[in-house]
Amino acid sequence: MLLHLSTWQEVETYLQTSQGIILPIGSTEQHGPTGLIGTDAICAEVIARGVGEATQAIVGPTINVGMALHHTAFPGSISLRPSTLIQVIRDYITCLAKAGFSKFYFINGHGGNIATLKAAFSETYAHLEDLQLAHAAKVQCEIANWFMCSSVYKLAHELYGDQEGSHATPSEVAVTQYVYPEAIKSVLISPTAPAGHKIYSANDFRQRYPDGRMGSNPALATPEHGKQFYDLAVEELTKGYLAFLSQE
Amino acid sequence: MLLHLSTWQEVETYLQTSQGIILPIGSTEQHGPTGLIGTDAICAEVIARGVGEATQAIVGPTINVGMALHHTAFPGSISLRPSTLIQVIRDYITCLAKAGFSKFYFINGHGGNIATLKAAFSETYAHLEDLQLAHAAKVQCEIANWFMCSSVYKLAHELYGDQEGSHATPSEVAVTQYVYPEAIKSVLISPTAPAGHKIYSANDFRQRYPDGRMGSNPALATPEHGKQFYDLAVEELTKGYLAFLSQE
Amino acid sequence: MLLHLSTWQEVETYLQTSQGIILPIGSTEQHGPTGLIGTDAICAEVIARGVGEATQAIVGPTINVGMALHHTAFPGSISLRPSTLIQVIRDYITCLAKAGFSKFYFINGHGGNIATLKAAFSETYAHLEDLQLAHAAKVQCEIANWFMCSSVYKLAHELYGDQEGSHATPSEVAVTQYVYPEAIKSVLISPTAPAGHKIYSANDFRQRYPDGRMGSNPALATPEHGKQFYDLAVEELTKGYLAFLSQE
Amino acid sequence: MLLHLSTWQEVETYLQTSQGIILPIGSTEQHGPTGLIGTDAICAEVIARGVGEATQAIVGPTINVGMALHHTAFPGSISLRPSTLIQVIRDYITCLAKAGFSKFYFINGHGGNIATLKAAFSETYAHLEDLQLAHAAKVQCEIANWFMCSSVYKLAHELYGDQEGSHATPSEVAVTQYVYPEAIKSVLISPTAPAGHKIYSANDFRQRYPDGRMGSNPALATPEHGKQFYDLAVEELTKGYLAFLSQE
Amino acid sequence: MLLHLSTWQEVETYLQTSQGIILPIGSTEQHGPTGLIGTDAICAEVIARGVGEATQAIVGPTINVGMALHHTAFPGSISLRPSTLIQVIRDYITCLAKAGFSKFYFINGHGGNIATLKAAFSETYAHLEDLQLAHAAKVQCEIANWFMCSSVYKLAHELYGDQEGSHATPSEVAVTQYVYPEAIKSVLISPTAPAGHKIYSANDFRQRYPDGRMGSNPALATPEHGKQFYDLAVEELTKGYLAFLSQE
Amino acid sequence: MLLHLSTWQEVETYLQTSQGIILPIGSTEQHGPTGLIGTDAICAEVIARGVGEATQAIVGPTINVGMALHHTAFPGSISLRPSTLIQVIRDYITCLAKAGFSKFYFINGHGGNIATLKAAFSETYAHLEDLQLAHAAKVQCEIANWFMCSSVYKLAHELYGDQEGSHATPSEVAVTQYVYPEAIKSVLISPTAPAGHKIYSANDFRQRYPDGRMGSNPALATPEHGKQFYDLAVEELTKGYLAFLSQE
Repeated sequence: MLLHLSTWQEVETYLQTSQGIILPIGSTEQHGPTGLIGTDAICAEVIARGVGEATQAIVGPTINVGMALHHTAFPGSISLRPSTLIQVIRDYITCLAKAGFSKFYFINGHGGNIATLKAAFSETYAHLEDLQLAHAAKVQCEIANWFMCSSVYKLAHELYGDQEGSHATPSEVAVTQYVYPEAIKSVLISPTAPAGHKIYSANDFRQRYPDGRMGSNPALATPEHGKQFYDLAVEELTKGYLAFLSQE
Repeated sequence: MLLHLSTWQEVETYLQTSQGIILPIGSTEQHGPTGLIGTDAICAEVIARGVGEATQAIVGPTINVGMALHHTAFPGSISLRPSTLIQVIRDYITCLAKAGFSKFYFINGHGGNIATLKAAFSETYAHLEDLQLAHAAKVQCEIANWFMCSSVYKLAHELYGDQEGSHATPSEVAVTQYVYPEAIKSVLISPTAPAGHKIYSANDFRQRYPDGRMGSNPALATPEHGKQFYDLAVEELTKGYLAFLSQE
Repeated sequence: MLLHLSTWQEVETYLQTSQGIILPIGSTEQHGPTGLIGTDAICAEVIARGVGEATQAIVGPTINVGMALHHTAFPGSISLRPSTLIQVIRDYITCLAKAGFSKFYFINGHGGNIATLKAAFSETYAHLEDLQLAHAAKVQCEIANWFMCSSVYKLAHELYGDQEGSHATPSEVAVTQYVYPEAIKSVLISPTAPAGHKIYSANDFRQRYPDGRMGSNPALATPEHGKQFYDLAVEELTKGYLAFLSQE
Repeated sequence: MLLHLSTWQEVETYLQTSQGIILPIGSTEQHGPTGLIGTDAICAEVIARGVGEATQAIVGPTINVGMALHHTAFPGSISLRPSTLIQVIRDYITCLAKAGFSKFYFINGHGGNIATLKAAFSETYAHLEDLQLAHAAKVQCEIANWFMCSSVYKLAHELYGDQEGSHATPSEVAVTQYVYPEAIKSVLISPTAPAGHKIYSANDFRQRYPDGRMGSNPALATPEHGKQFYDLAVEELTKGYLAFLSQE
Repeated sequence: MLLHLSTWQEVETYLQTSQGIILPIGSTEQHGPTGLIGTDAICAEVIARGVGEATQAIVGPTINVGMALHHTAFPGSISLRPSTLIQVIRDYITCLAKAGFSKFYFINGHGGNIATLKAAFSETYAHLEDLQLAHAAKVQCEIANWFMCSSVYKLAHELYGDQEGSHATPSEVAVTQYVYPEAIKSVLISPTAPAGHKIYSANDFRQRYPDGRMGSNPALATPEHGKQFYDLAVEELTKGYLAFLSQE
Repeated sequence: MLLHLSTWQEVETYLQTSQGIILPIGSTEQHGPTGLIGTDAICAEVIARGVGEATQAIVGPTINVGMALHHTAFPGSISLRPSTLIQVIRDYITCLAKAGFSKFYFINGHGGNIATLKAAFSETYAHLEDLQLAHAAKVQCEIANWFMCSSVYKLAHELYGDQEGSHATPSEVAVTQYVYPEAIKSVLISPTAPAGHKIYSANDFRQRYPDGRMGSNPALATPEHGKQFYDLAVEELTKGYLAFLSQE
C-alpha cells in the first residue's frame, strides 16, 4: 500500500490494524562515471515497495535527498546539511505520530544517511515527549540498510569479491539496472578505483576519488544480478519489518 | 533528462550548454475521500518530466513533502514546517548553484508551498551572496504552478464550473487518474462540499472541511480529462521554462 | 486604542469584549530617489491607526523592518531574513495569543512581506497547537495589504495610469507626503524607470533598477492624493477588519 | 536625520562623512497600572531623536519589541525570545554594515534588553568576520541606557528617592507623560509596591509583582519632570554618542 | 557531592532534601603570555567544588567552553557562539529541571559569559513554561561571579592596585597557580599592558591587546595569593548559595 | 600538553610542528546503581590525557555532556539535543581550525555520541569550505572510541564474558575505579540485568532498564582491571592518533 496512492480514509482504516510505516530514504549524489545519481533513492524505493507488498505495510514517499555533503564537489549531487535533515525527519515523524503511527521503518540506500538519521531519531523521541503525545514512549524508529543485509552482502562478495568496493558498487548499480534497464550507461571505466581513504570534506573527497568511485568496479553489474539483489533484500527486510512490528 | 537517471559526467556536459534545472515540488496530504495523498507530487512530477522531455532540460528529484501543516489533522498527511522547508530549499539550490546551475524552475503542484518557496528563494539569494559565489547575482528561481496555467484553468472551468473547487479538485484528481488509472477510487461522495472558508490551523481546517475537500466534486474527474490537463500544462510550462531560460 | 499608549489593565478590559488586534507591518528599504526609506512602515502605521480609531480596535506596535533582502544593495535598507521574520511573528502571536487574543489583522505596507508572513502564520498555528493553547484552533491571522485595496488600486490607476509602477509608487509616496509634508523631497527624476523585471538577488535588483524605482513616477504624487488614498484605505480596511472579526 | 524620512541617496551622502547610526530599542510590556505598555520604546525613541538632532546623526527605526519574556503573564506584553532577538540584531547590523555603517549606538529603554543585546553584538562581530566584510574589525556596537545616565539617575533620586523603584518608575513614566500628555492615566494606586525580588519566569514575576510595578510609585511622575529627564538624557547621550564616534 | 562521582540513585536521594545544584562555568581562552588557557574554567571549578563541600550541594560538570568569541584571534581559544550557548544552557537546565531540580547556581569564571547566560535563563524559563513543567514557575537561576565577590575584589585591590587589570588578572592567575603550581609559567612580561579599550571583534581585540592582557600584571600573582582568593571566594559564595537556596 | 594548562603562545609554538589536537568527549548520564554519572567523561578524559602524554599532543577541554537523551528519565543525567551538539562541535572545530589546527581526534567515552559526532563533522567540513578557510580541505576529524579498542574488547570478554553487557559495563566502571578509588560504590546489585532491547525514548528506556544497566554486572569491576583497561586503551589509541596524524 503506497501512501501516495492512498486516501486519508484508507490510512485511517489501516491504522486500526497497524501502526507501522515504511519510509524509503536515499540520496541524490554522484555514483561514479556509470552509476546513476539517483542510485540510492532508486534502490531504497524499489526495495521498500517490495517489502510493502510482501507485508501489506504502507510505504511513504521516498526521501530522495539525504546527507551527501561529501559528494557535492561532483555536479548533480544534492545534499541536506545534517541539521536540516534532522528537522526534516522530525517533521515527518511528528506528523505521522500525531496521526497514530508508532513504528517507523526507514529502508535506507545510503551509508551517509545513517549517522544523521540516528541523531534525528533521538531528537524526535525527545520532541514527542515534550509534546506530551500520548503514545510518545511507544514510538520506535529503525534503520534498515538494504546493502547491509547479510544475504546481499554475501552475494556481492561471491559475485564481485573486492571489486564490490564501497561506493558506486556493482551491487547497487545492478539494482538500478534491473529497475531502469533503459538507463544503463556504456562508458568505459578502468576496473580499479582508489580505495581506503576515509571521508572528510567534499573537495578532499573529489581529490582522492577523482571519478567518484570508491574501490568499486561497477562494470561487473548486470540487470540479472540486480534482480537477485532485489529479491534477497526484499526477503530479508520483509522479515526485518515483521520482527520490528511484533517487537514490543 | 532525469537527474536521478544521469551520471555526474552527463551533468557536467549538460552544464556546458545549459544552467537550467526543473525541480518538481508537491505535497503529501489528504485530498478528500477519493483523491490520492500524493496528488500534488504526482502531478508536479509527471508534468515536470513532460516539460523536461520537451525542452531537454534536467529534471531533479521530486520534493514529495511540502508545506501542508493545515492538512495534518487528516491521517497520512506529512508536512515540513515552513522554517524547515526554507532550509531544505536553501540546501538544494546551494549545492546545485555551486555546481554551476543558475536557473531554478520549480514546477509546483500545491498552493500551500508558494509562500514558503518565495521566502526560501529570498533567503537563498542572500545566502549565495554571503558565500561570495561568483555567479550569485545570476541565480534565478521561479515557481510555475501547473494548476494556475491559463489553459488548465480555462479547461477546468469548462468541464467543471464551480465544482472545480479549490482543494481535491477534479482537475488534479483527473491528472492522477491519467497517471495511475489503477489507483482510481470508487467511493461515493456527495457532489458538494463546504467552500469559502479561509485556511488557519490544522484542527480548524478539519472542522470546516470534514472530508477534506474544499468546494470540489472530484467525482467529475476522468483519466481522459487528466490527459488533456497534462497536455495543456506541459505545453504551457514548456513555453514558460524556455522563456525563463532565455530571460537575462 | 494604541497598545503602546495603553496599560495592561486596559488591555485586560479590552479582551473581555474583543480578541482582535491590528498589527501594522512595513519595511525599511529604499524607495527610489524621492521616496522615504520608511515609506512602507509609515503607510501601514497611519492606516492601521485610522482603522483602529474607526473600529475601536487595539493597534499594536509597528513592525518597522520586514523582508526586504532584495533592496539591501541600496544603503539604508534593513531587512530580516525570512527565517528570522518567521520567528519574530511567531513570538508576537504566541505572546498575544497566550493573553487571549485570537484575531490578528496585519495591515501590511510591503509586498515583499506577504510570502514570509503567510509562512509565519502556518508555522505559528502549528506551534500554538503544540503548546496545547486552549483556543489554538480559533487563532486566525489575516494580511490586509492597503495598496491592494480595490478602491486604492482604482484611484491610483485613474491618477497615474502606468506611471504607478510597482515600487516607489506615486500612491505610496503620496501617503507619506500627506503624513510627513515636511519630508517631501524635491529631487528631479526622469518620468520613467525600468520595469518588468522579476525580483531576484539584491545585486541583481540594483543592476536592473539603478535608482530603485520599478516603473514608477513618484513625481506625480501630492499630499492631497495621499489624503485620498489614506481615506480610501482606512474605509476599506475598516470593513475588512470588521468582517474578519465577525467571521467565525 | 531620521532614516525613515530619508532617501537612500541621502544615506549614501551621509555615509561619506559619518559611519554612525543611532538605533532606539525599547520594549512592549506592562508598566504597572498607570504606565504605558510602550513606555520603553517611547522613551528610547524620543531621546534617540533628540540625540540625533543634536549630533546630525541618522536615527534608525525603533525596535519596539525587545526581550520581555518575564512580563508576558500580563496581557498586552510582547516579547521576542533572546534567540530571536539575536537574529534580529544580527540582521539589522549586517545590512547596515554592508552598506558602510560601522558605529552602532543603541539607545535603550529597557533593562531586560541589555544581556541579549550584548550577546547579539558578539554573535554579529563574528558573523561579519565570517562574511569577510572589509571593515569587519571596525564595526563597533554600544548600548546607551538612557535611564542609567548619571544625570538622570541623580534627578530621579532627588525627586523620588526610594519610590523610583526599578520597573514602571516615575522617571520613565514622566518621560512618557511629557511626550504623550493625552495618555496620562488617572488610576489610583497605592504608593508602595513589592520590591527586591529577582526576576525569573513570567508566572513567578506576576505572583511577586501583582500589579506589575517593582517598588515604584509612578504617581509621582509629572510631564514637567519628564521634560527634565528628557533634556538630561539627550544632553548626556549626545556626549556619549560623540565620544563613541570619535573613539578609534 | 560531585555529580560526576555520584550515581543516579544518590541524586534521587539528594533531591528529596534539596533541589539545588551548582554548575561551574568557565571559558577556554587566551589569558596573556603567562595565564593558562583554562584559567576561567579552573577557577570556576575549584571554587564551585569548595562551595559544594561547604554546603553539601551537588556540583555538576564544568562547562569548560563559554562565550569568548573576542579572544578567538589567539590560538587555543575556543568559543561557543551566544546562540549555541543559549541552547546548551537550555538543554542542561531542562534535563535537570525535569528530574526535579529548581535552583541553578552558576559559579562563573568569565565575564564574557554573563550576558549570554542571562539571555539563556530567560529563554529557558519560557521554555519550561511551554513544556508545562509542573514546577516551572519555581525554577530559578543565578550567576555568581567569583571574581566579583566583594572580598575578592578588595583583596585584589590591596595586593595589586591598578595592576589587577581586567583580563589575565593576577588574581585569577594566582588561583590557577594555587591549583596547578606545576603549570606556573616563567615568561618575562612587561609590567604594563594596554587598558581601557572596549571589546568588539576578535581581530580588533588582538590589535588592541597584542599579548592578550587587558591592563594586568599577572607577574604579581603567587600561589599563596591564590589560596587567599580561593578561601575568600568559597566563603562568600557559600553564603551566596545558601541565601539563594533559602530564598522563596 | 593540556590545552587548559597552556598559554596561547605555547599553542602558537606547538602549531609550528603539529596541527593535531585530541578532544575527549564523554557524557553525564546514569550508569546504573553503582556506576558514576560521569563515567563516560572520566574515562575519555583520563585516556585522552594518557595518549596526549605519549604523543606530545595537545589535549583540549573535556566535553562533559554529550548526547544522552535516552538516559534523561534517570535523575542526574544531562544531555544536549543532537542539533545542539552539532552546533557545539561546529563551534569548537571552527575556532581551532581558524587558528591552524587541522587534525581533530575525538577520544570518545559514550556510544550515544557517535552518530551525532559524525553528523557534526559533515556539517563542519561544509561550513569550513563555506568560510573559504585556506586549509578547509585538509581538516580531518576522527572518532576514537576507547571502549571499542580491540585490546579493550578482548580483555573485557576474557574478564567478564557476557556480563560485560552494553551500558554501565564492568570495564568502564573499572576505569573509573582506577581513577577515583575513593568513589567506589558499595551497593548490592543483582548479577543480571535486562538486555537486548533497542534504545528509543527516555521513558521507554527506563521502563526496559529499570536500574539503568543494560545486561551488565559492574560488580565484577576492580580498580586493577581499570588500570589494565586504561593501559590498553592508551596504547592502542596512541597508535591510532599517530596513524591519524601521519595520514595524508
